[in-house]
Amino acid sequence: MPVAQPSKDIVDKLVYANRILYDHGVVDGLGHASVRHETAPGVFLLSCNRAPGMVRRQDIVCYDYDGNAVSDTAERPYLERFIHAEIYRARPDVMAVVHSHSPSVLPFAITNNALKPVFHMSGFLGEGSAHFEIREAGGNTDMLIRSSYLGEALAKSLGHHSCVLMRGHGSTVVGTSLEQAVYRAIYAEVNAKLQLAAQPLGEITFLNKEEAQLSSDMNDGQIPRSWNLWINRLGNIDLDA
Amino acid sequence: MPVAQPSKDIVDKLVYANRILYDHGVVDGLGHASVRHETAPGVFLLSCNRAPGMVRRQDIVCYDYDGNAVSDTAERPYLERFIHAEIYRARPDVMAVVHSHSPSVLPFAITNNALKPVFHMSGFLGEGSAHFEIREAGGNTDMLIRSSYLGEALAKSLGHHSCVLMRGHGSTVVGTSLEQAVYRAIYAEVNAKLQLAAQPLGEITFLNKEEAQLSSDMNDGQIPRSWNLWINRLGNIDLDA
Amino acid sequence: MPVAQPSKDIVDKLVYANRILYDHGVVDGLGHASVRHETAPGVFLLSCNRAPGMVRRQDIVCYDYDGNAVSDTAERPYLERFIHAEIYRARPDVMAVVHSHSPSVLPFAITNNALKPVFHMSGFLGEGSAHFEIREAGGNTDMLIRSSYLGEALAKSLGHHSCVLMRGHGSTVVGTSLEQAVYRAIYAEVNAKLQLAAQPLGEITFLNKEEAQLSSDMNDGQIPRSWNLWINRLGNIDLDA
Amino acid sequence: MPVAQPSKDIVDKLVYANRILYDHGVVDGLGHASVRHETAPGVFLLSCNRAPGMVRRQDIVCYDYDGNAVSDTAERPYLERFIHAEIYRARPDVMAVVHSHSPSVLPFAITNNALKPVFHMSGFLGEGSAHFEIREAGGNTDMLIRSSYLGEALAKSLGHHSCVLMRGHGSTVVGTSLEQAVYRAIYAEVNAKLQLAAQPLGEITFLNKEEAQLSSDMNDGQIPRSWNLWINRLGNIDLDA
Repeated sequence: MPVAQPSKDIVDKLVYANRILYDHGVVDGLGHASVRHETAPGVFLLSCNRAPGMVRRQDIVCYDYDGNAVSDTAERPYLERFIHAEIYRARPDVMAVVHSHSPSVLPFAITNNALKPVFHMSGFLGEGSAHFEIREAGGNTDMLIRSSYLGEALAKSLGHHSCVLMRGHGSTVVGTSLEQAVYRAIYAEVNAKLQLAAQPLGEITFLNKEEAQLSSDMNDGQIPRSWNLWINRLGNIDLDA
Repeated sequence: MPVAQPSKDIVDKLVYANRILYDHGVVDGLGHASVRHETAPGVFLLSCNRAPGMVRRQDIVCYDYDGNAVSDTAERPYLERFIHAEIYRARPDVMAVVHSHSPSVLPFAITNNALKPVFHMSGFLGEGSAHFEIREAGGNTDMLIRSSYLGEALAKSLGHHSCVLMRGHGSTVVGTSLEQAVYRAIYAEVNAKLQLAAQPLGEITFLNKEEAQLSSDMNDGQIPRSWNLWINRLGNIDLDA
Repeated sequence: MPVAQPSKDIVDKLVYANRILYDHGVVDGLGHASVRHETAPGVFLLSCNRAPGMVRRQDIVCYDYDGNAVSDTAERPYLERFIHAEIYRARPDVMAVVHSHSPSVLPFAITNNALKPVFHMSGFLGEGSAHFEIREAGGNTDMLIRSSYLGEALAKSLGHHSCVLMRGHGSTVVGTSLEQAVYRAIYAEVNAKLQLAAQPLGEITFLNKEEAQLSSDMNDGQIPRSWNLWINRLGNIDLDA
Repeated sequence: MPVAQPSKDIVDKLVYANRILYDHGVVDGLGHASVRHETAPGVFLLSCNRAPGMVRRQDIVCYDYDGNAVSDTAERPYLERFIHAEIYRARPDVMAVVHSHSPSVLPFAITNNALKPVFHMSGFLGEGSAHFEIREAGGNTDMLIRSSYLGEALAKSLGHHSCVLMRGHGSTVVGTSLEQAVYRAIYAEVNAKLQLAAQPLGEITFLNKEEAQLSSDMNDGQIPRSWNLWINRLGNIDLDA
């Protein structure tokens, strides 16, 4: 039985999310964003194998927790759809996932340093970022999360965090909405850039746990202001082309 | 009794200020610029809760020193209008205020280092930047200046300086005109970037007090040259849309 | 006897390669990309002396291993066509070559440090980059590879590597296709930027040899996704103007 | 007697030079480029007080060595025209001058470090950059070269170099043609950025004197390639508006 058709709204929002992430340099030709299906349990929406900056409505496919397409598609899937599948399986609270190789976050991933919140915009990093070492789960690999097994290991490393850094690869953030996950992907990058820049100046006073929590709660109410700007920056785009 | 309608000139200038700050990367979806009302005592102009890069004429609202709207508006205000309100209350010499999270300034704010003038363009930093630690005034917070109480504490930290760095948050600059405040926000960022870049090269010779003062006085006469360029960079924009 | 006319496809692809490299900041007014002739042995295609971002179909010239034009042209050649000629002569496996002064790679070239793969996208750097010191071959020079003799010395330094850093000059990457060589030029730069940024954070865990090989093999299958994006970024361009 | 009208060619070239320098981020609202008059001895062309990115044909004014306008103009001059005047007076070989606050060069100026050539493109830095400390000539000032006296002191610091760094201010480069001076301003910035980036990686092998001289001579023949690209980047611009 085919999965219920996702709403036009959620499809459009996912197309926008992809274009926004590209416009902000969080993704280049690689990386992907997904969102849970609004009504079908155990299903999420993700583009077929296409550069995020070029994703169109017709590229959005529904997948189940095993990474199998459950909507009609003749297109090749992303090799790493298991990142999304296994996080949705393990974290019922997660409604959206963004995976990227964003450039300021990677230095932390490859040196096993944690992101920590330098300002209120990144309060969601209050618990610090988690770290994933693929060698522990899979030995020597091509670094990709190309199976349910590796996806499960990544989800385990993520635990209850909002962000997991992946050694030799990139990072993945999660959110309770697509807007929030996009926001977190953008500000994980901003936070990382600030942490790197501040390093030579002396000891950084990070937000403490309570400040981080209060900031994060407050920020969630401000996301629409940024989301509107991000859509506006894209100009007049055709979501079908 | 409603406040006198601000002139079209000052409203347009404030819209331009918002767009210029966005165009220069001083603000992203967040941050705000304000200017004193030309005739109404104790009143200033500030956009409603909107990304600076999208601010239009119709978004400009008049507020009093307590952060209450004194012109007609159905729009949500910025949570942090108290930054502006309390600085205008404490500093009669201040005619305009810019608050931002500009990226090169933040590393100084979070490590408690001061900005100091590296060249004539930033002579206004001659006394160095002030530093604000919100924990001293408010304990653990969401980092926002969301009350008159916190605004007053910030204004106190600012003192007679032109710039105050806010730990875990950003910075605020003030000026005797809107053009000057915008200039200072842009060149505080430029100065910070230069200070960061020069750090590994050895000891920086900063402008001394007299050089800073002379430079700052001289620069004020040159601001129109930059302001014209900044307007020109925006191209043909519609201030109503 | 004149060389067989190269196909329209390969000429167009080479024009695109030049424009893409410029669009990505890998080359500025200088630098060049070449590809082997599809049917003529010992012949390769390279633009005449023109900035890569302005290369058009009519600028593409065929050269032999001695750097002599073997197709009709009245245009001045690049002084450094010997980089390409001698690498094609020495490495039958190489189908395309990109020479650039890309800005994050140069710091490694001038300090004799090697690029090593920090993530799967740069698995092609698994053996590290090679290093070329022109003084060893030519004493004091204008740094250019302006003869078969210097080209041969460079090809020898390159050896079986995918990338050679050239002290006081830039770098050269090779690939088994034009798309792959362009990909490698872009991600050599990305990798270098990441290595530089990670340096102050502590020890980098590089991909090991097996991870690098597996990643490199895997990535080759993903290049079309990026190539399509890179073409798309250029917008509607006229390859004849 | 009024000075001979400069040719349309040289005026247009100077307008382009201004726009190119802005397009490359060498100048912002401030900075200026000048060129010697082709036929009138002791006269040079420079814009009136206007942001370089907005300079038009009608803004170009002729000045003599004392900084007096010798062509008709009602416009305010640059305060620092004496930089140009005194260098032309002291250095008959100099045909063009560019003064800027370019961002990667300033860290060297304010820490009294010299630019040295890291690659062939900056062979013109073979003697290193000179350094100017305005306090030695003028005590505490507003940092500007606003008199013949200070201009003369700057020209003396420049000596026979191609580039002088000005503490607390910026830098000035000279050339034997306008294209060469623009080239040098752009590549002084590129070289500085590379020197900064390479610093943490270990000892830099700079070009030696002979390599620098040979590179510089060779590069002069390649400037048209870059100049054409720089013009092309500006798109369809109106030199009168």
